[in-house]
Amino acid sequence: MFNAIQVVGRGRVGAAFAARLADRGVLADRGAPDLVLLCVPDRAIATAAASVAAGPWIAHVSGATPLAALDPHLRRFSVHPLQTFTKSRGAEQLDGAWAAISVEDETARDRARWLATLLNLQPFDLQDEMRTVYHAGAAIASNYLVTLYRAASRLFEAAATPPEALLPLMRRTIDNGFELTGPIARGDWSTVDAHLTAIRQHAPELEAMYRALAEVTAA
Amino acid sequence: MFNAIQVVGRGRVGAAFAARLADRGVLADRGAPDLVLLCVPDRAIATAAASVAAGPWIAHVSGATPLAALDPHLRRFSVHPLQTFTKSRGAEQLDGAWAAISVEDETARDRARWLATLLNLQPFDLQDEMRTVYHAGAAIASNYLVTLYRAASRLFEAAATPPEALLPLMRRTIDNGFELTGPIARGDWSTVDAHLTAIRQHAPELEAMYRALAEVTAA
Repeated sequence: MFNAIQVVGRGRVGAAFAARLADRGVLADRGAPDLVLLCVPDRAIATAAASVAAGPWIAHVSGATPLAALDPHLRRFSVHPLQTFTKSRGAEQLDGAWAAISVEDETARDRARWLATLLNLQPFDLQDEMRTVYHAGAAIASNYLVTLYRAASRLFEAAATPPEALLPLMRRTIDNGFELTGPIARGDWSTVDAHLTAIRQHAPELEAMYRALAEVTAA
Repeated sequence: MFNAIQVVGRGRVGAAFAARLADRGVLADRGAPDLVLLCVPDRAIATAAASVAAGPWIAHVSGATPLAALDPHLRRFSVHPLQTFTKSRGAEQLDGAWAAISVEDETARDRARWLATLLNLQPFDLQDEMRTVYHAGAAIASNYLVTLYRAASRLFEAAATPPEALLPLMRRTIDNGFELTGPIARGDWSTVDAHLTAIRQHAPELEAMYRALAEVTAA
């Protein structure tokens, strides 16, 4: 569908996408592209899109940005890789991940799915007006997972116990299909109260977060 | 060190411990044990301990319960497996996990470490008076990880996107050493505000949790 894809931006996502497209033989660093893939920061997408001459298809890879940011282009779509990227890894970061596809017509959907599949991402549809709630879910799952680990590590350090011991626990929690165990699952509120007392003593900055999570967990 | 270990209780932890000890040829279901391992609910430990005749060593496997619950026994320790257990798996659940060892003297430490190693758990020391803050950390890492996934799934369902797409994202977040990416890492507060607006619309019960996590993440 596309033979010459220009990747604009070489941040975490742009570098991984460009590496995979080069592997596939469709990365176009010069000449006339048939797709311009904007891998720039969210706030730079509209300006970058406006500077692209009419002709090729255009797409962005942002989870949070609506398709209207690609104005005035009409042959457009977005492919958001639902993954966290690090600069120390390459195209293999895409393998196994899913991608949210947003389009306005079937022609665009075919092309977006083709691109996702070429990148080795598993595509699913995301309505443009639902992308904020989708993106909030992704941020909770990924960014706040970091926050949980850091908070738990802080408490482990206060207890002079090794934070790395948390890793098999967290991985198994995922492997077990997120089956809830522990004091709240048992209705053991005296342990929850004891946790709050310990947190107030050792890491008071975590108390509000612990309470808010306990309330949602119990609901 | 121990040749005949009696496991009291066959819940999630007791079943896994008993299976592993049977594999090792030291499970004693009858006769005089040299160690009684209480794998009963936290609130039942003191009563169970009091009912054990003097003679054998005694231990519990609770993260939250002090050693004093094992009164009047003095040859005692605790081994808390830092893992989440499911009834559908067996002794292999212990492999790769760590265990918190609490003791009051070196003789007990040697025995607790021997038992943890026999179970294929990696032991670390936990001071008895630090167990509540330690246990709070473990609950945050495991139980609230379930809460994050459920919250993110709720938002994905509101967006008509597949919650299972979150799994590669969450696993990679761990694999990448909990490197923070996303809007807060970028200082992109307008996206955070947009998330809050979407959450208020689609899942208002998550707003306080999202805010509390955002504050700790940003700190």
